[in-house]
Amino acid sequence: MISSRTMLFGVAGDPVSHSLSPILQNYFFKLFGVDGVYLAFHVMPAELPAALLGARAMGLSGLNITIPHKNSAARLSECRSREVDLLGVANTLAIRAGKVHAFTTDHIGFVNSLGSEKERFAGSNVLLFGAGGSARSIAFALSGLGVANLTIANRSHERAADLESFCRTSLHMTAVTAMTFEHPGLWAAIAGSSILINATASGMFPHSDEAPISSFDMISKSHFVYDLVYNPRNTRLMAEAKKRGAAVQGGLEMLVHQGLAALNIWLYADYQLQETELNKLKTLLLRELR
Amino acid sequence: MISSRTMLFGVAGDPVSHSLSPILQNYFFKLFGVDGVYLAFHVMPAELPAALLGARAMGLSGLNITIPHKNSAARLSECRSREVDLLGVANTLAIRAGKVHAFTTDHIGFVNSLGSEKERFAGSNVLLFGAGGSARSIAFALSGLGVANLTIANRSHERAADLESFCRTSLHMTAVTAMTFEHPGLWAAIAGSSILINATASGMFPHSDEAPISSFDMISKSHFVYDLVYNPRNTRLMAEAKKRGAAVQGGLEMLVHQGLAALNIWLYADYQLQETELNKLKTLLLRELR
Repeated sequence: MISSRTMLFGVAGDPVSHSLSPILQNYFFKLFGVDGVYLAFHVMPAELPAALLGARAMGLSGLNITIPHKNSAARLSECRSREVDLLGVANTLAIRAGKVHAFTTDHIGFVNSLGSEKERFAGSNVLLFGAGGSARSIAFALSGLGVANLTIANRSHERAADLESFCRTSLHMTAVTAMTFEHPGLWAAIAGSSILINATASGMFPHSDEAPISSFDMISKSHFVYDLVYNPRNTRLMAEAKKRGAAVQGGLEMLVHQGLAALNIWLYADYQLQETELNKLKTLLLRELR
Repeated sequence: MISSRTMLFGVAGDPVSHSLSPILQNYFFKLFGVDGVYLAFHVMPAELPAALLGARAMGLSGLNITIPHKNSAARLSECRSREVDLLGVANTLAIRAGKVHAFTTDHIGFVNSLGSEKERFAGSNVLLFGAGGSARSIAFALSGLGVANLTIANRSHERAADLESFCRTSLHMTAVTAMTFEHPGLWAAIAGSSILINATASGMFPHSDEAPISSFDMISKSHFVYDLVYNPRNTRLMAEAKKRGAAVQGGLEMLVHQGLAALNIWLYADYQLQETELNKLKTLLLRELR
């Protein structure tokens, strides 16, 4: 029951009305016996500084930050984790002793969502679709997983080259290549990689018939295809890859695990999710998706 | 279930951890099917402006304001009800189209808590103990109930005289007298009044053995004694008055009714509370009191 001791958490974004985080975190609160509630806050870009000062003044316990505030939240916070400094984005703010501390949990969510597939990464060749904020977090995670070669494919070459340079300079990765989706070397890159990761929005509802690549013929049963998109649960890329015998994974587990990582940051906790609870939660979240 | 559409309300105060408002309003939300949660926000005096700007930036739907913020909240709000302008205090803020609107509901809570006892007030002589913020709101309510004579008794004569002057100048009451609790005329005032109202904190937990007056001998079965204190439920003043055959009422109904008035302001609603629901709610609230 809510009382005057109940902690308040929330997600700040614009738009925010379709965020799954309230469902996710309130499920965690119930599961782990946390006396908290988690709400969605529709915050306009110009209002983010006021929202953060207000969150502090009202004694909120923590916030998730989503589009378009991830960069500003990092900048406006008084303390930043090493990862936030490195990636320039924050998706999790903890309010500790009146100070806003910024964290990012995408890379933790990605790694923790892999389960036994994690073993595939060390020494592997990985092809990453996309060069935006999500792709950057994935590249950071990949550098920690010890991949051998990383190829970045993106619509704009400039952003791909930016991410390549970030990987070399900041992540100390040496074997990194950037190309556009039009580059003829893309097909060889698919064939030569054992792991394909989609960090673009291509294939996301309502454009469920789209995919980051125009042909799936180079995908075989030796591939592991990871799509960060979670709506729909089975993207076109996943369906085509599965048809060709590849192992596939959608973005829902990552969503769950980055949320769990945020909760663990807020509460200095180490909550873990059992398989049965994860499946219950996924069912609950899928019910919310259109 | 909490979702991204759930509205957020709360009470801002310092201290706030013993506020009954979260229990009260979340009970209302469930009873009336309101998709909202109501929390307690511990806001320091210096942080109230940031909290109000933040509440607006985060899209909170409404706030209650308690000690020590009632005057500042009135001042900081962009729109004020007639009663807030008159009384200089706000205990209810509604956030409408990005603007903070200030209201006060103490007088509504008092009047609506009276039930059939309301009939006693027109043309009656009333003795009011206290001259602070609560007493001022009660005086305002009494002016609307058409009392004939109002006597204000207070520890400090200066504040009593201030409230007397407010009653004359702003409430256009003509028959108003101010005195201290030491004034020898107090006993005649008790005997000559049919209604006694305690708007001081005297008798409140943990000082449950105290009362605003030192002798109860002038109280008889013709009196109606109303104590705004709700913790303990039966104050010493109420117990002594009851012993002498007087009708008595404690502050819990007023608490409930001022909260209901706030809810109706926030939602442009006209929710009413049935007797059985009121009793269930009172049981719930009493369980929270020490």
